[in-house]
This record gives sequence, structure tokens and C-alpha cells, in this order.
Amino acid sequence: MVISKEVVRISEADNVGVVTTPKGLEKGVEVLEGVVTTQFIGMGHKVALKTFEKGDAVIRYGHTISHARDLIPAGAWVNERNTTLPEPPSLNTLQYTPVKQTSVEPLNGYTFMGYRNPDGSVGTKNVLGISTSVQCVAGTTNYIVDKIQKELLSRYPNVDGVVAINHSYGCGVAINAPAAIVPIRTLKNLAQNPNFGGEVMIVGLGCEKLRPESLLSGDRGEAQDSILFLQDERFQGFGGMVEGIMEMAAAHLEKLNARKREPCPVSDLVVGLQCGGSDAFSGITGNPAAGFASDLIIRAGGTVLFSEVTEVRDAIQQLVSRAANKDVAEALKREMKWYDDYLSAGMVDRSSNTSPGNKAGGLSNIVEKALGSVAKSGKSPIMDVVPPGNKVRKKGLNFVATPASDFVCGTLQLAAGMNVHVFITGRGTPYGLREVPVIKVSSNSTLAARWDDLIDLDAGPIAFGEKTIEEVGWELFHLILDVASGSKKVASDKLGLYNDLVLFNPGPLT
Amino acid sequence: MVISKEVVRISEADNVGVVTTPKGLEKGVEVLEGVVTTQFIGMGHKVALKTFEKGDAVIRYGHTISHARDLIPAGAWVNERNTTLPEPPSLNTLQYTPVKQTSVEPLNGYTFMGYRNPDGSVGTKNVLGISTSVQCVAGTTNYIVDKIQKELLSRYPNVDGVVAINHSYGCGVAINAPAAIVPIRTLKNLAQNPNFGGEVMIVGLGCEKLRPESLLSGDRGEAQDSILFLQDERFQGFGGMVEGIMEMAAAHLEKLNARKREPCPVSDLVVGLQCGGSDAFSGITGNPAAGFASDLIIRAGGTVLFSEVTEVRDAIQQLVSRAANKDVAEALKREMKWYDDYLSAGMVDRSSNTSPGNKAGGLSNIVEKALGSVAKSGKSPIMDVVPPGNKVRKKGLNFVATPASDFVCGTLQLAAGMNVHVFITGRGTPYGLREVPVIKVSSNSTLAARWDDLIDLDAGPIAFGEKTIEEVGWELFHLILDVASGSKKVASDKLGLYNDLVLFNPGPLT
Repeated sequence: MVISKEVVRISEADNVGVVTTPKGLEKGVEVLEGVVTTQFIGMGHKVALKTFEKGDAVIRYGHTISHARDLIPAGAWVNERNTTLPEPPSLNTLQYTPVKQTSVEPLNGYTFMGYRNPDGSVGTKNVLGISTSVQCVAGTTNYIVDKIQKELLSRYPNVDGVVAINHSYGCGVAINAPAAIVPIRTLKNLAQNPNFGGEVMIVGLGCEKLRPESLLSGDRGEAQDSILFLQDERFQGFGGMVEGIMEMAAAHLEKLNARKREPCPVSDLVVGLQCGGSDAFSGITGNPAAGFASDLIIRAGGTVLFSEVTEVRDAIQQLVSRAANKDVAEALKREMKWYDDYLSAGMVDRSSNTSPGNKAGGLSNIVEKALGSVAKSGKSPIMDVVPPGNKVRKKGLNFVATPASDFVCGTLQLAAGMNVHVFITGRGTPYGLREVPVIKVSSNSTLAARWDDLIDLDAGPIAFGEKTIEEVGWELFHLILDVASGSKKVASDKLGLYNDLVLFNPGPLT
Repeated sequence: MVISKEVVRISEADNVGVVTTPKGLEKGVEVLEGVVTTQFIGMGHKVALKTFEKGDAVIRYGHTISHARDLIPAGAWVNERNTTLPEPPSLNTLQYTPVKQTSVEPLNGYTFMGYRNPDGSVGTKNVLGISTSVQCVAGTTNYIVDKIQKELLSRYPNVDGVVAINHSYGCGVAINAPAAIVPIRTLKNLAQNPNFGGEVMIVGLGCEKLRPESLLSGDRGEAQDSILFLQDERFQGFGGMVEGIMEMAAAHLEKLNARKREPCPVSDLVVGLQCGGSDAFSGITGNPAAGFASDLIIRAGGTVLFSEVTEVRDAIQQLVSRAANKDVAEALKREMKWYDDYLSAGMVDRSSNTSPGNKAGGLSNIVEKALGSVAKSGKSPIMDVVPPGNKVRKKGLNFVATPASDFVCGTLQLAAGMNVHVFITGRGTPYGLREVPVIKVSSNSTLAARWDDLIDLDAGPIAFGEKTIEEVGWELFHLILDVASGSKKVASDKLGLYNDLVLFNPGPLT
């Protein structure tokens, strides 16, 4: 990384710099020898470090992110209006030419305090999950969660909370459509998230298409104790249903309350990485620091998930070359292809990603966003590709092929088995999950200062050379262990700020 | 309607009867002269009133609902396994041959007590709506709703409640896709539901694709007082945001609290009809009674909405012949065609509708379900067709082209401007909306007896000749007026049982 006065570059080859000064740069400021700003350029935005002729490649992260639409003088603002979007890398001609993996030293001696489950997975929170087989019961489960919080939870001090896994699936949907496999396996795997400790209960209606039994894993013979239908004839009215559910909940709370934390190796961690509300700093500070922490977790034997197909699509060549073997490379291409087709069926393409806020934050297009997004995957080899809704199978770095939509991605990472979530944000998203602790990392210090009760770790100082990527990466690594152990509470848990989950039922989303 | 011993037929032409006895019919019971049951047949299920040769038409509601797959002896159980599904009526060859409308007498002298709004619409509840431009704020609006309920509402005794219009749209979605028009106009029109009294506020994040300004109608210049961004630099942390939203909410609650009920003509009612968890009685009792009440509302000058494309698709000939003019007929065909294509893009068809519960309740296929479903539209001419997410434009009977999924249909009827909801159920769905009162009508008395705290009106006695369709229709008409006036509370409001709304973002749903 090259930091010179008020601009930063990731690679020596970059011919644009990113403005780091919070107030932006006025016209007439020399940012590099002989390069003087020709106009005001805001924080996070790009300044031309050379004169671009029409068609010249704009290079950031050492890669072409766009081409000049016309002449751009040195010192001018480079943005989505004076540049053009390159074609996406072709998947058909993409070859698997693996990068040489440098051998890394295992990282020993780190543990955390987790709840070990009968299936071998390890929880980081202790939560009663009430899943549902159909949208028709959502009103009732909301009612119940409220009642459990008010009347039952205080009796079970070791239980962190209760959550209804409500969704808009289960009936009134084409359950025989080929794409139905995604929401169905998502719901099934969500119920198995390690933080529910195998004690999920399912509330069904009775007449729905999606059968509640299909949401419990094969070895849970005790379905009788865990599935309840509102239409069951034994319930007299709503009062009867509520009583029935409260009774079942109490039995599960009793078991959850007996869970105890014990020392667990880092190999029991499944850390999900995601960025939301990104800005131009995300790829300079927050994401590379998360990438460094990711490599540490992996060196210590743990599992890391990264996702967001449209946000890595343009960096596919980098990803494929990091695949652990040819099968993984093919799986990566397959998931990209699936998503290309899915978007195309909705008559859009990957350029639908990047929001007005991304652009306001200095991210001109999806290529620039992708190169910054991939930084959070660190340098480890990609061991496996997990289709959306499936559970992770391998230790090490996994690509979980999800939409970039934050709430859909988070839901699918939960289904994959995530037990700690790291969420990197630049513009700011007040994100929180009841199911797992979410560590919010800010990409710039302005946000961290303003959202002092929402941000858990500030990666902003990296942009000014005040901290290194390695330093913040280690901070994040230690924070992950502390949060997984329950010894540190994340901001959203302190506030009680929690999002609803959102199922991916394919139909265009970016 | 023909009621003979333990079975009921809607039309003399019917060659199957529906068992009305709650315990079902044992083998050896004579149901009609010379027709003796050859096996046990459950309540709501069909008994053959003649011997069917292979290919013979099975007739119910005077229409062919299926064909015998093989020989079916008189007295046998007719179900989805021994019959086949007919082809759907072709839309291309469908001609507009209007039925002669018998002139109906206007119904005068009925009013209700409603909240008249500046835009001329009339509310039946007084609710603070907090809409959202993006899923990223849902955690925060949930938090706020809870806080307003605990800390503010008691100061505004005329306000019935507060609701967050959370959804999974707004960012991370292909907002430039052709189909995006549906969720966007739905959100905009939801905010204008008469029960919000023009006082909706919008919580946005700041960097999202969907702009909050686009959710307020053109004449609401006071957007400054009604739109708030969490990323606004004036908010110091989550605490600051919460304070800002609470302040804005108090200002709107103040105005809502000043609303007063006044006598309004029935022409200000917009009654949305829907059925969910239907059984074979739905088309005999609840739906025809709702249809009768619908005709009364329309005679009194009001507006009635019916919906659920896949549940009327097979009755399209009937609907087209009831269209008020050729344009309406064409619009009906256009919406059916759009849905055929939409399902086909997801590689399914209309047979994806009918749930296991429908079948267990005696509804063998979508044709039988459609004929029963259409009964709730009464006999009035169809004045207009409303595409999903749009607002109703005409008085009288409107077809609002929505998916059959209960929560999506309800959401779209709210966007169309519904101020009272009638929900007819046979199997039982504990449905409730915070936005408008929901009258739950049971199609059978078994359900009404069991769900005594959930069902508002029992249409079951019609099946035994204990009440007529007309009697129950009038009861429902009066109940609608009482509920709209706030003088009677519906079951879901007494219980505080409320569903979340579900947006229709096209991608297969039936």
C-alpha cells in the first residue's frame, strides 16, 4: 500500500489514488509530485494520477477497473460518469492455473469458550430457535416470542434469547419448481445452526405444502417433542395453541439452560464474512484487515465463509487461481454461471449491483467493488464452494454462493453453519443478528466516531498509516475469540438490535 | 343448493355430493335414493352420486371439475387420485360474451363511522405507519415500534397502534428489472392506505437503491417532516437515531390523535375478500355468503376486491362473461396470461396451487378450488382489473390480480386501498393485520367451535340448511359496518395477533 499525502493506493501500478482526507480535497492541492487537483474531490473518491486518453485503462488494486470515456486530465475526479464498465470476464475460456501456495505456519495455542453440541458443532450463543414451516404461523410465533421473553426467559439465565425463524415460504409457493430446493434446504440447515444447540422447535399450521418434519435432521427422532401444528385438534382456540407452544418451549429452554461453555479449539469456529454499505475505503482498510484475520483463523484450523456472487464475479480469475483443486475451480465457475443466468432471466446483469451509496462513497462500478470485496477473503486457498442454502463441509476458506443482499447473505451463512459473523461497513448499516454475534467493522474512522455505539472495531486508521492491516487483523482475530467465548458483547447485542432473516427464493436479487 | 341427508350439492347438475357430517360417512350409508357409500368418506370429501365410466366428467358447482381416471362406482369416494385435471381454459380463443346483467336495486340508508382523510379516502382504524425504503433498517424499526408501544402510545388514546412496514426490498435487488415495478408501486401505495391517515413516515438508510422520496405521493411536500435517514450525519450513534425517530413519531401521533370518526356512506368502504386454508365447504358456505355480502356492499355503493389469480384461472370463462365491458374482459385475460407466463418461467403451472391441506379438506384440484373461490365475488359485474401493487380506481367489484399466497394477497389488497378485510377459512389460519380489521369467517362449524377466540363469523350452518346464504350474507354485511365503525373489535385485534406483510417481487409464487 502506498500512502502519499492525502491519497492512498493499494498497488504501485495504480494510476488513480483514493482521497483519505475526511473533508475531501479542494482544487489546487498537490497529491503527488506534479499532480494537482483540478476540482474538489470528496473523501473516498478517486483522483487521476496521470492524464488518461480516451480508452485508457483505469487501474486500482493493480487491476483494470474501467476505461476512460474521454480525456481525463491528471488531478481530475475519476468516477462512474467519465469511465466505462468493462465486459465481465468470460467463464467459458477461464482456465484453472493455480497460484503457487506458499506454505503457512499453523497457528497454535488459541482457543475459545464454546457450547459443544451432540453433533460436534460448537455454539457461541445459546438461543432457543422456533422455526416455522409456513408464513401463516408468523403472527403466532411473533406473539409467542414476545410472551417467552416476558414470562419465561428470566427462569433460564443461561439462555441468551429466543428467535422465531419466520419467512414468507412454505405455502402459496411453487414447491415443485426446480428452484424450490434453495429455500427448503436453507430452512432445514438454519434449524441446525450450532447456536440452537439441537433444540429447535418447529411451529407448523397443518395444511401447508412444506412439511415441518422435513426441516428436522434425520437423527432427531424426538420430533413429537419438537413439532407442533396450530390446526391440531387438541388445541382449543388461540389460547390453547399458545399454551401448547409455551409448554414445548419450556421443555427446550430447560435443556438449553443446562448447556455449559468449555474450551474449544479455533477449528470449531465458522466465521462468516460480509460487507454491506461499502465505500472506497472498504477495499483499503476493513476488507484487507478482515482478510488478514481470516488467514489467521484458517492457520489456526478454523473455517471462514465469504460470499456475494455479484461482488466477486469480476474478480473470478483471482478466485479460480486460488481454488485448492480443479473441482473447486469448476464449482466456482458453475455458481457464477448459475447467477449470470438467473440475473439474465430477470433481464438484468451484474451491473445492477452498486447502489447510489456505493457511488457516493467513491465506488464507481461493480468491478471496483468486486476487487475491494474479494480482499476480505485473504490469501488462503479456497477449499470448497457451498451452493446457497447448503451446509459447509470443509475447514479452511469456503466460498458460499449467495446474493449480495445483506440479509439474504447473512441468512445463508447462518444456514451454512456460521457461528460468528463479521460485517464490514463504510457508509454504515445498523446490522445485528439474534442467532449469532455480529462484529461490525467500520472501514473509515468518521463512521466509527459517529456510530460509536454501533461499531465494534474501527479499521479506518489503516488509511492514514496509523495502523497496519496486520495490526487491525490481529485485533479482529482476538475480538472474534472473545466474542465467540461470550466474554465480550458486540454492539448489536448490547443494544438488542436485530434484523429479521430473509430467505433466498430465486427470482432476481443482486 | 340441494341438501339431502348427509351430503350437499350446489347445483342440480352436480353428480358428486359433498359430505357434511363432521365425523364423515361410514360405508353402507344411503346418501341419495339408491346411492350407498362403498367406503368411509370424510367430511368435506366427495361421494359419487352415479357410476362414472373412465373419462366421464365429474360435475360440481354445475361445472366439470375433473374426469374419472377409471370406473368409479356410485357411492365411492371421488378424489384427486381417481380423477384427472382438465386442461386450463385457453385464453386465446376466449370470447367476451357478456351475461345479461339483471338490474339491482340500490341499497340505501347504511353508513358507518369512519375517519375521513384529506385525500377523500376513509379510514377504519387509526394507525401510525412507519414505512421503510430498505431492508437494512428493519432491525431499527422493529426496535422503534416496540419503544413507541411502551413509551408513547398511551399518550395518544385515539391512536390504535403503530406498525413498521418492513420488507426485504430496496437494495440488494435488481431495481432496474422490468418486474421491479411491482414491489415499488406496492410500497408506495401501501403508504397511502387510508388507515394511516396520510401520516406515514419513512425510515431510510441513506445509501439504498430505492429512494424514500419515491414512496410518498406527489402532494406531500412536507417530506422533511416524514423522511429520516439513519446515515444522516446529525445522528450521534444508534441512540441519536432512536431519539430522532421518536421525535418524528410523536409529531405524527399528535396529528393522528386528532382524527375523529364521522358518519360515512358505504361507498367509502373498500372491502378486500380472501380465502386461506380452504376446504370443500369454502365454496358452499363461507365464499357464497361473502359473495352475497359483497353484492350488498356494491348495491350500497361500496367497493369490493377479490383476488388470487391461480384460484380463479380455471373459472376465467365465468369472470370474463361478468366483465362490465370489453376492456375489463381483455384486462382479465392479460393478467391471467401474465401469470401463466410467470409460472411457466419458474417451470411450473397452476396445478402448483392446492396444498396438502386443501386435498385433506376435500378439494381435489385447482379447478374445484377455483370454482369455490370465485363464489366469493358474488354476482355483480366486474368493473375493473387492478394490476398487483396498483390502487383501485373504480367503485363496485374489482379483480385485484395477486398471487394466492395469503400474506402476499393481503399486502397487495392493502396497497389497493382496502379498509376492511374478510378472510374465509376452512382448515383454519390464525390471520390478522395491524393495518386494517380482519373479519375471519369459518366455512364449517367444527372449526368455529374449536377456534372460538379466532373466528368472527361462522358460515358453517349453511351446509346443514340451518341458515341460508342470504342470512349469513346479511350478518356479514352488518358485521363489516360495525367493524369499520370501530364499534366491534375483531378477534385478531382482541388478541393482538398480527402477521407481517409480504411483498410480491415476481419470481414464482402461486
